[in-house]
Amino acid sequence: MPIAMYPGSFDPVTRGHLDIIKRSSRMFDKLIVAVLVNSAKTPLFTVEERVAMLRECCKDMPNVEVDSFNGLTVSFAKQKGATVMVRGLRAVTDFENEIQLAHTNYAMMPEIETMFLATAIKWSYLSSTIVREAAHYGQDVSRFVPPNVEKELLAKRAAGKL
Amino acid sequence: MPIAMYPGSFDPVTRGHLDIIKRSSRMFDKLIVAVLVNSAKTPLFTVEERVAMLRECCKDMPNVEVDSFNGLTVSFAKQKGATVMVRGLRAVTDFENEIQLAHTNYAMMPEIETMFLATAIKWSYLSSTIVREAAHYGQDVSRFVPPNVEKELLAKRAAGKL
Amino acid sequence: MPIAMYPGSFDPVTRGHLDIIKRSSRMFDKLIVAVLVNSAKTPLFTVEERVAMLRECCKDMPNVEVDSFNGLTVSFAKQKGATVMVRGLRAVTDFENEIQLAHTNYAMMPEIETMFLATAIKWSYLSSTIVREAAHYGQDVSRFVPPNVEKELLAKRAAGKL
Amino acid sequence: MPIAMYPGSFDPVTRGHLDIIKRSSRMFDKLIVAVLVNSAKTPLFTVEERVAMLRECCKDMPNVEVDSFNGLTVSFAKQKGATVMVRGLRAVTDFENEIQLAHTNYAMMPEIETMFLATAIKWSYLSSTIVREAAHYGQDVSRFVPPNVEKELLAKRAAGKL
Amino acid sequence: MPIAMYPGSFDPVTRGHLDIIKRSSRMFDKLIVAVLVNSAKTPLFTVEERVAMLRECCKDMPNVEVDSFNGLTVSFAKQKGATVMVRGLRAVTDFENEIQLAHTNYAMMPEIETMFLATAIKWSYLSSTIVREAAHYGQDVSRFVPPNVEKELLAKRAAGKL
Amino acid sequence: MPIAMYPGSFDPVTRGHLDIIKRSSRMFDKLIVAVLVNSAKTPLFTVEERVAMLRECCKDMPNVEVDSFNGLTVSFAKQKGATVMVRGLRAVTDFENEIQLAHTNYAMMPEIETMFLATAIKWSYLSSTIVREAAHYGQDVSRFVPPNVEKELLAKRAAGKL
Repeated sequence: MPIAMYPGSFDPVTRGHLDIIKRSSRMFDKLIVAVLVNSAKTPLFTVEERVAMLRECCKDMPNVEVDSFNGLTVSFAKQKGATVMVRGLRAVTDFENEIQLAHTNYAMMPEIETMFLATAIKWSYLSSTIVREAAHYGQDVSRFVPPNVEKELLAKRAAGKL
Repeated sequence: MPIAMYPGSFDPVTRGHLDIIKRSSRMFDKLIVAVLVNSAKTPLFTVEERVAMLRECCKDMPNVEVDSFNGLTVSFAKQKGATVMVRGLRAVTDFENEIQLAHTNYAMMPEIETMFLATAIKWSYLSSTIVREAAHYGQDVSRFVPPNVEKELLAKRAAGKL
Repeated sequence: MPIAMYPGSFDPVTRGHLDIIKRSSRMFDKLIVAVLVNSAKTPLFTVEERVAMLRECCKDMPNVEVDSFNGLTVSFAKQKGATVMVRGLRAVTDFENEIQLAHTNYAMMPEIETMFLATAIKWSYLSSTIVREAAHYGQDVSRFVPPNVEKELLAKRAAGKL
Repeated sequence: MPIAMYPGSFDPVTRGHLDIIKRSSRMFDKLIVAVLVNSAKTPLFTVEERVAMLRECCKDMPNVEVDSFNGLTVSFAKQKGATVMVRGLRAVTDFENEIQLAHTNYAMMPEIETMFLATAIKWSYLSSTIVREAAHYGQDVSRFVPPNVEKELLAKRAAGKL
Repeated sequence: MPIAMYPGSFDPVTRGHLDIIKRSSRMFDKLIVAVLVNSAKTPLFTVEERVAMLRECCKDMPNVEVDSFNGLTVSFAKQKGATVMVRGLRAVTDFENEIQLAHTNYAMMPEIETMFLATAIKWSYLSSTIVREAAHYGQDVSRFVPPNVEKELLAKRAAGKL
Repeated sequence: MPIAMYPGSFDPVTRGHLDIIKRSSRMFDKLIVAVLVNSAKTPLFTVEERVAMLRECCKDMPNVEVDSFNGLTVSFAKQKGATVMVRGLRAVTDFENEIQLAHTNYAMMPEIETMFLATAIKWSYLSSTIVREAAHYGQDVSRFVPPNVEKELLAKRAAGKL
């Protein structure tokens, strides 16, 4: 049975990400949610915070494991024994970037397959960037993220870090 | 373990379709290739011919079953116990149609998930329409379809039906 | 105050169309919903039926008028004194066709402005074609159309005309 | 020096087509404008009429030749010694179809190169379909086509054939 | 009667922006052109300079007001009593970003409607970025911006600030 | 006979770029590959290194000249006597940017024509960014770049500069 991996920045995880996690966890024996440690961008949340929020969100999905990685996504997939990469598609611009990425990954590691799920229609406009911006301006973000993530966003804001 | 379904017209099956079949058959316990009997369009090949060509092409993939259906794709999926629909994505226009179809199917039968695979780059321009047109003008189609399908195309042409 | 026109086939009107009608009726003194009599395609509903269903749907919006026309949309707009054309945008392919149409209309009648509204996200996959197809296969269409339109679709189906 | 070919239906030729012809004729020693005889669609103008209108439009461009053909475009290009195919690009949907066509042509005849020119911005919404429709409704088409083509459109209309 | 708002950076205002201002000012009783003070990017012109240039450009349109704001666009619209947001659409990539923004704004403040106008075809390639770059390289920008803006660009260049 | 120019950053040149160079060099008497010195971005390779790698790659194409420039591409084209600009198209997002650039260049210097070639299907996912990233993570890049460029990438990596 294939193991699947869902890689991303998750800065922070949104209800759109959680929808993809829930749906893909039903399709495979095991799903690894893989948080990318990207040294080039300064994230709002540390990798530890992002992993912790995801674990809290996924605690009722026993076949979902949350982990973090550095480097090439396909190398991490290989190391963890994952043979399927899961990606969400929202819009045409997503599609073009993702197709390019899938073909590059295939050229580098043909044994790993990329599979796309269409983001649920009600989250199709949502992104972590939009969540951070809405929280920065003091908007209610409870529609966009689960309660534990909302709490962390409010804490960042109270600390003047958002 | 989920059963997957790959629906289409397959008039005729191309090397691009076979690539999607091979890749998705590895991801699931069972894959049903479902040939649509579309009464609105006059196909080149009868549904029986299309099923027979596909069975010949898939004879070495034991977990692939070929079947035909009439009516709504999601209803046939439900009847066969399939919970995942497989679709190939080539280009942006494909993407828009497929996303719309996936959302419609979801609205009608939310228990069936649609999953997309990017068509292999070397088949990304290929379609059954192009194959029929190339064969009609007497072009070599061996790059586009497997030998048994090429043979059937030549037979149709010789019979003046292409 | 500008009068606006919302042209279309409305075969039949969907909840997506009604959302555009409601929102644009709030932006203008008067909105004319204009049903196109297209002699080239055979519609499911006659123009009289389409107008009647729309009138029933819009009876609580006093500044909305329903009418039908033949010929060029911009000519009908001019005849009715409308200076704004309203169009809904769902996806990129919509966008390209609509932009082309808007530029053509502008070249023919520059005094008429085209304005676009984004279709509400939950109706962004919906079209009259999808409604007719779902009704044809006996699917529940109450999510897609208002009750009076659902009733008419069931009647067409019972009469074997769908 | 390469010979170029610009294939199309030209039913009828528009100012947009003429812009592509003028610009590409400057880039090559010889440009063959190739009118497709498509038996599947019923054109407004016969192939002879379309060729005659194009010849009239191109009479001041000595290195432009107008011809008609049946069958596969690349086969006709080969027969005429053309090694470059010229295509105009207006919008994204054009782009996807044209890219697919270029790759198919390349797969069938790799010695023939496809080159794209962006349609001049002021003609980017224009097509023969739009011209025929505008003429059908009695609109002024002098912005869209040269005088000789306008005259032919008016004649078709007077004869009740438009 | 609805009040409309046209938000943007306007660094500097182009002939494309002015076309949208002129056309939308005709559709509403009042149009507020709202200059965004974005602390994240270093603009070429200060917010005061951008407002002054816009006021000069719009002095003959009595129902157009120019203002500047900080923070969330929808919050500023609410504060000013605007219920319609005006946006120009040039290309498909514009469209996707704008649709996402419109849906986000709707999720945050559903009482504010977003309306799109297609940028006039002759300005469809134009942006403030292109204007700044052309001016930087000493190109003639009189086709792209009105005279008062051209003067300010030349002054910035003479001062070595461009 | 027109002289053509193929401008770009080439940081570094890929097999995709070389395919465009080879194909366009066959269409014109002379092709100038023009390396952009962009002061805004810090490239991996200096302009001298990029020019040297390109010259090595093109040494068997006698009508290809490699040069570098600063400033506006159309100005450099004019200075070198080039009347055709060559650009590769991979995907829809490429297309939109390139079309905008072509129209801007045309507005600034109408005597220079932009011509597009579709990137060969097997390189359609490839970019210099992907090559740099793959090399950074120690992946085999011999599929993406010619041997001399691979050697330079390995040297940069060994020097800790990648």
